[in-house]
Amino acid sequence: MADNVPVFGNHIQEIIRCANFAAIKHKHQRRKDTDQTPYINHPIGVAFILTEEAKVYDLSVIQAALLHDTVEDTDTTFKEIEEQFGKEVMGLVKEVTDDKTLPKHQRKYLQIVNAPHATNKAKLVKLADKLHNLRDLNRQTPNGWNDRRVQEYFEWAARVVAGLRGTSSAMEKELDELFKERKITI
Amino acid sequence: MADNVPVFGNHIQEIIRCANFAAIKHKHQRRKDTDQTPYINHPIGVAFILTEEAKVYDLSVIQAALLHDTVEDTDTTFKEIEEQFGKEVMGLVKEVTDDKTLPKHQRKYLQIVNAPHATNKAKLVKLADKLHNLRDLNRQTPNGWNDRRVQEYFEWAARVVAGLRGTSSAMEKELDELFKERKITI
Ligand SMILES: [Mn+2]
Ligand SMILES: [Mn+2]
Repeated sequence: MADNVPVFGNHIQEIIRCANFAAIKHKHQRRKDTDQTPYINHPIGVAFILTEEAKVYDLSVIQAALLHDTVEDTDTTFKEIEEQFGKEVMGLVKEVTDDKTLPKHQRKYLQIVNAPHATNKAKLVKLADKLHNLRDLNRQTPNGWNDRRVQEYFEWAARVVAGLRGTSSAMEKELDELFKERKITI
Repeated sequence: MADNVPVFGNHIQEIIRCANFAAIKHKHQRRKDTDQTPYINHPIGVAFILTEEAKVYDLSVIQAALLHDTVEDTDTTFKEIEEQFGKEVMGLVKEVTDDKTLPKHQRKYLQIVNAPHATNKAKLVKLADKLHNLRDLNRQTPNGWNDRRVQEYFEWAARVVAGLRGTSSAMEKELDELFKERKITI
């Protein structure tokens, strides 16, 4: 980056660069809701939970939030993320990316097992990701899902969240209320 | 805003807040291209042109870029923008919003007439908006448009841009190249 660029500028520029990158990568994807909401609303919503609710203003965490599903769900590679956004952001995206070569049940199991070993920054993204997804599920049952599948998703999410605790009291409190509504023992 | 929030935090937070607000407001809208690209990719792309090409890092300009079509194209009111993002951002959004109670030909004429009287910050948003739209048109003809309609759009855009000059040499140079390709005398 040029030396004459002010630091404020860099922050705004880096955030917009990530948002634009993710918006283009996710442009053909829609959320699972019946509204067919653009997928990009999810990573932006995850970043918004972090800044507004968790009061997280760390640039790399917000960048990782915006990019968190690009490798898992689009043709984006970790190499591309590293070239465009640097090693730290790439590392965080890697920590929150499931290995899609594995069968789905194993990926879901690995999220539970790996959660406690994630770095603090990655835990923040994982908590905000779960919170945004569970609120979406609460708002509307996706096409093709029944109540039981929704309940099972909440139960699985509660087990992942168990391994992420001690990271953000604001987000954990919101998650606990959702689990309580579903009568899930934490 | 709380006094203990660092200034960096505020910039990141304000940008994410605008992106999230616009993404939710535009969630049912798609661009005119055959890809049905989510509309939100446009305001994010306008902000990206400003930071990457015009090297504009002014917070209010980037906020206005993200929000620039919310009042014109969704149920958003200027009051809502002012309450959430303050008077300056609202004023900028107002400067770049067409009055949809007027017939279309008059709105397009007013853009030409009003352009030279806009503030410098609003001119920056207008230039980036035109540049993003013209690049989209160059990439793909929208459903239901023919070559003549595209050419007329370029000719109209060139007249609006004429009233915005002296604002950003980087964006004006890019626009001039597009006009030249279309054999439009500037
Ligand atoms: Mn996600
Ligand atoms: Mn626009």
